[in-house]
Amino acid sequence: MAIPNSKRIISCAITGSIHVPSMSPYLPITPDEIAQNAIDAASAGAAIVHIHARNPETGQPSPDMNLYRQIIEKIRAKNEDVMICITTGGGAGMTVEQRAAVIPEFKPELASMNAGSINWGLFPAKEKIKEFKFPWESQMLDMTKNFVFENTFAAMEKVCKIMSENGTKPELEVYDTGHLYNIAYLIQAGIVKPPITMQFVTGILGGISSTPYDIMNLHTTAERLFGKGQYAWSVIGAGKAEYPAAIMALILGGHVRVGLEDNLYLGKGTLAKNNAQLVEKMARIMGELDLEPATPQEARELLGLPRK
Amino acid sequence: MAIPNSKRIISCAITGSIHVPSMSPYLPITPDEIAQNAIDAASAGAAIVHIHARNPETGQPSPDMNLYRQIIEKIRAKNEDVMICITTGGGAGMTVEQRAAVIPEFKPELASMNAGSINWGLFPAKEKIKEFKFPWESQMLDMTKNFVFENTFAAMEKVCKIMSENGTKPELEVYDTGHLYNIAYLIQAGIVKPPITMQFVTGILGGISSTPYDIMNLHTTAERLFGKGQYAWSVIGAGKAEYPAAIMALILGGHVRVGLEDNLYLGKGTLAKNNAQLVEKMARIMGELDLEPATPQEARELLGLPRK
Amino acid sequence: MAIPNSKRIISCAITGSIHVPSMSPYLPITPDEIAQNAIDAASAGAAIVHIHARNPETGQPSPDMNLYRQIIEKIRAKNEDVMICITTGGGAGMTVEQRAAVIPEFKPELASMNAGSINWGLFPAKEKIKEFKFPWESQMLDMTKNFVFENTFAAMEKVCKIMSENGTKPELEVYDTGHLYNIAYLIQAGIVKPPITMQFVTGILGGISSTPYDIMNLHTTAERLFGKGQYAWSVIGAGKAEYPAAIMALILGGHVRVGLEDNLYLGKGTLAKNNAQLVEKMARIMGELDLEPATPQEARELLGLPRK
Amino acid sequence: MAIPNSKRIISCAITGSIHVPSMSPYLPITPDEIAQNAIDAASAGAAIVHIHARNPETGQPSPDMNLYRQIIEKIRAKNEDVMICITTGGGAGMTVEQRAAVIPEFKPELASMNAGSINWGLFPAKEKIKEFKFPWESQMLDMTKNFVFENTFAAMEKVCKIMSENGTKPELEVYDTGHLYNIAYLIQAGIVKPPITMQFVTGILGGISSTPYDIMNLHTTAERLFGKGQYAWSVIGAGKAEYPAAIMALILGGHVRVGLEDNLYLGKGTLAKNNAQLVEKMARIMGELDLEPATPQEARELLGLPRK
Repeated sequence: MAIPNSKRIISCAITGSIHVPSMSPYLPITPDEIAQNAIDAASAGAAIVHIHARNPETGQPSPDMNLYRQIIEKIRAKNEDVMICITTGGGAGMTVEQRAAVIPEFKPELASMNAGSINWGLFPAKEKIKEFKFPWESQMLDMTKNFVFENTFAAMEKVCKIMSENGTKPELEVYDTGHLYNIAYLIQAGIVKPPITMQFVTGILGGISSTPYDIMNLHTTAERLFGKGQYAWSVIGAGKAEYPAAIMALILGGHVRVGLEDNLYLGKGTLAKNNAQLVEKMARIMGELDLEPATPQEARELLGLPRK
Repeated sequence: MAIPNSKRIISCAITGSIHVPSMSPYLPITPDEIAQNAIDAASAGAAIVHIHARNPETGQPSPDMNLYRQIIEKIRAKNEDVMICITTGGGAGMTVEQRAAVIPEFKPELASMNAGSINWGLFPAKEKIKEFKFPWESQMLDMTKNFVFENTFAAMEKVCKIMSENGTKPELEVYDTGHLYNIAYLIQAGIVKPPITMQFVTGILGGISSTPYDIMNLHTTAERLFGKGQYAWSVIGAGKAEYPAAIMALILGGHVRVGLEDNLYLGKGTLAKNNAQLVEKMARIMGELDLEPATPQEARELLGLPRK
Repeated sequence: MAIPNSKRIISCAITGSIHVPSMSPYLPITPDEIAQNAIDAASAGAAIVHIHARNPETGQPSPDMNLYRQIIEKIRAKNEDVMICITTGGGAGMTVEQRAAVIPEFKPELASMNAGSINWGLFPAKEKIKEFKFPWESQMLDMTKNFVFENTFAAMEKVCKIMSENGTKPELEVYDTGHLYNIAYLIQAGIVKPPITMQFVTGILGGISSTPYDIMNLHTTAERLFGKGQYAWSVIGAGKAEYPAAIMALILGGHVRVGLEDNLYLGKGTLAKNNAQLVEKMARIMGELDLEPATPQEARELLGLPRK
Repeated sequence: MAIPNSKRIISCAITGSIHVPSMSPYLPITPDEIAQNAIDAASAGAAIVHIHARNPETGQPSPDMNLYRQIIEKIRAKNEDVMICITTGGGAGMTVEQRAAVIPEFKPELASMNAGSINWGLFPAKEKIKEFKFPWESQMLDMTKNFVFENTFAAMEKVCKIMSENGTKPELEVYDTGHLYNIAYLIQAGIVKPPITMQFVTGILGGISSTPYDIMNLHTTAERLFGKGQYAWSVIGAGKAEYPAAIMALILGGHVRVGLEDNLYLGKGTLAKNNAQLVEKMARIMGELDLEPATPQEARELLGLPRK
């Protein structure tokens, strides 16, 4: 039976690799913190938790498999149902191989697959931080002034192949309009197979912004390129655009992502204490629109994945 | 006195670095061919000629200053008026320094300044070529499968500074929606000063496409970000989209670029014999819309450049 | 001091002339009910109450001046501050003269001025009503199958003149894209003076619909025709589109209207018991977006009206 | 075999009911003039000729059946193939019955069916006319200040029924965005059957304008409401917007209408001497875009009509 259109997937991105610990004391860093945030986000209504690992001492984004393993095991110990989506975006400076190594290791249902290259300019955030807890934070932000987030066609092909071999569905990360055309190419070349799942990642300096005009543009372009029923889509609005961008997606029929990876604030001037608070707010807004968070099983059906 | 809105700038891109000699026997390669094409394009109505150099033996894109010098001198010997816009995009594989070296050397009125990074996927074109004249052609096309056209924020800042020091106005090359936001950042950071001049480069695999929807999107985004009178814009449609994309720009109030860099065909199945033919066709279409090609002096005024 | 962009006007349309009593027992009908609903809506956050009168016996829309007088006096007895916007749309079948007679009589700060003609097809609603309380209801719905809501250029000119003579600001009701061009004509002909106030009335069969695409279209067309600072705008979404349409307006920088004139339901399957409930829900949603309802005094400033 | 997408229908509207003889000495008025214009327009590439009759003495739009009969017979005497589309819009002041009477009388393949009501403001044109040849011209223009072009849902239903009974396909005339929703209602109510044929009539004061933004809006709304393959569409741009609007349609995949009904000028300041000149210009522009005028037989296939 088809899942009704009133069911929308909330994805929660627990910690990411963009924010630095000095921005918020609530950013989860250790495997325990990350797992607990994920468990609580799921309880609050998230059908998908999007996972990055960080060095538990310094908070620096980390490709360490052991950290990922701990996080996943801790989540699964408490919640067998929530979908786990692992990053292959990694942190600035990692190679494609490093970024994709999580796939054969954990064979997640879902993993991010970046659909093109953009400048990745986090450096303007530096001005807002008065004091840094760790030296790497400021270095990482500075580094992005001369950084390109590289995802070439060869790399996309390689990552998709690895996912395909491991039964992982790519969550295609779209950072700009052209990335939708990249995906159309990947489909036409047989590298990606519909129905596809896309995440519109908006508001990164270097990519498209989070205005309603940009989301409308991505949405209508996707509709034109892929056609009804051939794609699912969700929106991330970076920072204070998180809720307006998510609501725009809901109104246009899409799914949403929230979480401390994307936004540290519950409202103007109020830091979110954990990811669950952000999910709760999202679920509350859905209620006002006569919508409901999809369960993980409903989300699997909406994304064309086998039930678990 | 203000230039009337019926005057539109035709820019002609003589040879570029994308097409390979095996695609058309009419692609100008030697300094003589490039200069003569530029001179004839100007006579046909182009106010700006956009110049790349190629190795006269092999047709391979080249950063050789002597080649550029020959081209420019040959043009100027016959035409003192046409605006010369030199590339800083160079060819795949050149560094930012190599690409920008033409600026202090020739101090052109106008030079291209790439406003962001994208994948630059020329490789699908390979399938249409039956026989290659030169080994580098096939290698270059293959190489783009794993290539990012890198223009980081640091690089953009450096190139803009070099241009500013040499009295060169940047023609900001926009390959995707996010690049407009990059430019908004550059303006806000004081790196680029309005009124700005932009070229929407559409149809490169990796960037935005050439559909009327994409051009409308870029146009309305630019209008929203920069405001009336603060920017001039022109459109390039790659390949067979050249004229539809250009006409879309004309209807929306913009300027246009044609030329063998962007499109080798005069019409379906008919190779253009030279750049002038493409300019003539553009001028003829303008006439049907009660528009006229701007002269180089009018173009200078439209772009906020001093008369020459 | 400028009102911050986080302040948005909630207008509440108390009873209108579209819904018939058989649709909801909570539709206010008597002057007492209408006034009390208005007073409570204002307490809940509405800065403007939009008023129609109905025959207290039958609920039929009425142009009776005495009814309007009672409603206004009852509101003013309890609330001196809320802005009162009186309809000049009246009910189906009234002449322009009948519809405008409220203006010289009550000299309201604000009154609706319909910016064009459309078919006004309420007849499909008939199928959803099992039993009619009053004979006029079914007749009125049937009648709209052959009805045009007429607002010719001559009528608009006449109504605007009456408003101008009585110090009433027109709230320009826009039912379709072309009505924005009608307003541009009225401005150019000196009949209406910027800054203007518009209400986008969406979802009437005969006019534009309430989809986010339609609201985006009206918004971008208005922006293009009138320019920043020259217009205020608000959106009405008929029926279940009330909140999605209002939220779309909020995200795009506009104001909103709710109320039993436009929508009888608080959520799916739940009739609103009064207008205040609808306003409270709107204010709650605003809170989730870090927005706040403007007070009547703030609303006056936002609309360019003198403080009271 | 499917007609290729490079074939586009040119419709030519010979004389209409909007322009008055004082505007151009070349406006065809007598049955002979109208028929000859139609014959020559067809020779120049028009697959459809859209016919109105005028009083041969005064040029006033006329519902006289004898005039229509003469025009049609004269056309058919010279051209058996061109599609004839007869107006049911008539002139200002005619009833629906008067307007539809041509259908049973001539059973044309195609006739216009107006898809909604708008103000029909021709009055501003009066200022541009220095001297009137006939008294009715100025009266008619004045009259439109207080005129609504009425096409209620009941009237649309009646006209569609008459067409259906006579084997005539309605060409649905869309004057504003809401009219597309009217058509969606007509389809859902079974009154009109897909595939439908629409004409977007832009630039009448009272309806939508002819800007590329408006045409894009109508096009994308139609695409969303009706879906690929379910509708054919064409654009009319009134006055000097004729060619830009038509070209916009061509670029977006649509068909076009030109003709002295819509536009009297061949270019800025140059009156067209006949309809054929306007068609020739349209065909010439098509050629520049690698498009070709469809023949009447191809047009029938494109519109889902039986071959003749």
